[in-house]
Amino acid sequence: MSQTDPDTKLARVALTWLAEPGNAAVHRLVSTVGPTAALAQIREGQGLDEPARTAAAARRSTADPHEVAAAALDRAARVGAHLVTPEDPQWPRQIDDLLRLVRRSHPASGPAGLRDSAPPLALWVRGPLPLDAALSKSVAVVGTRAPTEYGRHVGGELGHGLADRGWTVVSGGAYGIDSAAHRGALAAGGPTAAVLACGIDRPYPSGNAALFDQIAETGLLISEWLPGAEPLRHRFLVRNRLIAAVTSGTVVVEAGARSGATQTVRRALAIGRAAMVVPGPVTSAMSVGCHEILRDHPQARLVAAVAHVQEEIGRIGFDLAPTPRGPVRPRDKLDPQAARILEAVPGRGLIGLDDLAGRAGVDIRTALRQVSALQAQGLLTGVDGRYRLTQPAPR
Amino acid sequence: MSQTDPDTKLARVALTWLAEPGNAAVHRLVSTVGPTAALAQIREGQGLDEPARTAAAARRSTADPHEVAAAALDRAARVGAHLVTPEDPQWPRQIDDLLRLVRRSHPASGPAGLRDSAPPLALWVRGPLPLDAALSKSVAVVGTRAPTEYGRHVGGELGHGLADRGWTVVSGGAYGIDSAAHRGALAAGGPTAAVLACGIDRPYPSGNAALFDQIAETGLLISEWLPGAEPLRHRFLVRNRLIAAVTSGTVVVEAGARSGATQTVRRALAIGRAAMVVPGPVTSAMSVGCHEILRDHPQARLVAAVAHVQEEIGRIGFDLAPTPRGPVRPRDKLDPQAARILEAVPGRGLIGLDDLAGRAGVDIRTALRQVSALQAQGLLTGVDGRYRLTQPAPR
Repeated sequence: MSQTDPDTKLARVALTWLAEPGNAAVHRLVSTVGPTAALAQIREGQGLDEPARTAAAARRSTADPHEVAAAALDRAARVGAHLVTPEDPQWPRQIDDLLRLVRRSHPASGPAGLRDSAPPLALWVRGPLPLDAALSKSVAVVGTRAPTEYGRHVGGELGHGLADRGWTVVSGGAYGIDSAAHRGALAAGGPTAAVLACGIDRPYPSGNAALFDQIAETGLLISEWLPGAEPLRHRFLVRNRLIAAVTSGTVVVEAGARSGATQTVRRALAIGRAAMVVPGPVTSAMSVGCHEILRDHPQARLVAAVAHVQEEIGRIGFDLAPTPRGPVRPRDKLDPQAARILEAVPGRGLIGLDDLAGRAGVDIRTALRQVSALQAQGLLTGVDGRYRLTQPAPR
Repeated sequence: MSQTDPDTKLARVALTWLAEPGNAAVHRLVSTVGPTAALAQIREGQGLDEPARTAAAARRSTADPHEVAAAALDRAARVGAHLVTPEDPQWPRQIDDLLRLVRRSHPASGPAGLRDSAPPLALWVRGPLPLDAALSKSVAVVGTRAPTEYGRHVGGELGHGLADRGWTVVSGGAYGIDSAAHRGALAAGGPTAAVLACGIDRPYPSGNAALFDQIAETGLLISEWLPGAEPLRHRFLVRNRLIAAVTSGTVVVEAGARSGATQTVRRALAIGRAAMVVPGPVTSAMSVGCHEILRDHPQARLVAAVAHVQEEIGRIGFDLAPTPRGPVRPRDKLDPQAARILEAVPGRGLIGLDDLAGRAGVDIRTALRQVSALQAQGLLTGVDGRYRLTQPAPR
């Protein structure tokens, strides 16, 4: 299934076990020295900040990381799941856009969710669809676990309509809106993927076991956590970043006040994905979160039909901004001032010269000079006197 | 009641009869030569473009304009209504913001609604509230004549809540959302005003007669048309601009696809008023127009509660831009280039230097020079490298 060398695989699984998924320090170390060297360092108590170091030490004292990893691979194989790693061709590259969140966060002071927003080290996958292909045209449909009849209906209709048009409907497998979206997609005979916050061999909630079986038969179950992992509360927040990152956009169907959906939408916007919101009656508690998002985030778009969703994600590809990895490209050779200007250009939409200068903290003349240079290098595109990142050619 | 000289009054009424309210040519003529001289010119077939000239000639052939005007004043007095003109201290000055619409429109090619968007020449008023005071803190609540139970409920709640907080609830007196808003305000014991598209002595629809009587007892009935005027179809569109102009903002509660509410909101935005929209279920035909507005007009704001409306109109005063009349002010003495820059600044919100240069059609260096001069004259205010019109001190 995978051509990744077994040691690399084992190291990635062991690292995921030693430190929770999303740990930015581990991801940085793996990017720098590779998975096996990173594991060796962390086994010796290096390469991690507190409190991850203490947590890793505690885990290390209970079992041998290599043995745990080997057992996890066996356990996954028994339920028909396999591991996909960044070394595999089917690794979904768009996940790396999560690095934009990591760069924004301050490890010490940032909110817990943002601290744990690094890309996963590996993904456990169960189901017949190739991971990258299934996610290359995908959209998330999420919402409350306690929907109204209205929300359940709209979630199902969106799932059905989007799957029917060839979009993979991604959700979290929870009761309520998530289930309605998955079921709608299945009813359309279309692709759907559930991204879990626990082990892939014990999808949560168990009351949805029949639904998970159906999804695994025709779509995909996906998890970052080792088989057997429990659906701990904070894992849902960490999981939500992955739903935002693998899809072209996230639709929130119903959400209560200050719900997790708001957080998923913020992540989606921060990494350049479309954020879409279904409105509802202002008298419904389950639409309060939706209306909050629309009021607080001008970039979030109201959607009232499948066509609106398609309009939004049809024009937003992945990689609106070049991803920060791979071979050396022009932007890696920029001088610091030019890099600062380029960093200040939003992932989506146009920016005027003076806004750009303001965000980059340079004067207008400098901005104008650098912008000309960046345009000459094909990194910036000018449109009616404003600028956007040049989009790479579609894959 | 009014200190306006009787000839001026008669002339304004006669002019309103000869040409329909909103006629830009008549308004321009009156502004230039005064009402009595304007009437004399128009009686002689001058001062109007076609087809208004033909229409005025046809009316003139049926009766003497002065006699019609005198009869109208008598007829109004019999139902307890009186005339308020721009010469009266209680004339609501914010109405002149309608001149922004006139300046944008092209008499020959513009849509009918925009052609008829000049300020009224006079207003017929019935009810105990002083016109200017009642409208100085007012908000429009409008929507479909065929609401759902949900829309009726929300319209009533908004009317009640806003009136309860001292806002005059302005609407059109129609069945449906309009009635719900007026009734909500009356139930709160607060002020409400119905702006009519017909004579003030025969408010339409007659099925709302009891409601109109209640409004006239504690609030205001307002009309531009002479007593006896029929509620012709196109008059509702002309009337809608007045609802947008006299209030600080317009809330649309429920509206079908491509409804008149969309048009009212466009007017409100064009003259610098807040545009607010109540969302609803995406499955409801009566929320389709509301969702259209929110999708098409990024400046329109979703409101889900009275507090949201207050937040929006509390910070938007009238006169975000100086009104184009009154004594000579600094902007009247500007050179054409500076005037062009000033014209290009939006009535609401901030604009960056390069956007401003683009809109004014000058290069950035010129824009920068003129912006500095305009700031020195107190006409522009800079905020974080962007610019907005300097607000006049609140009255």
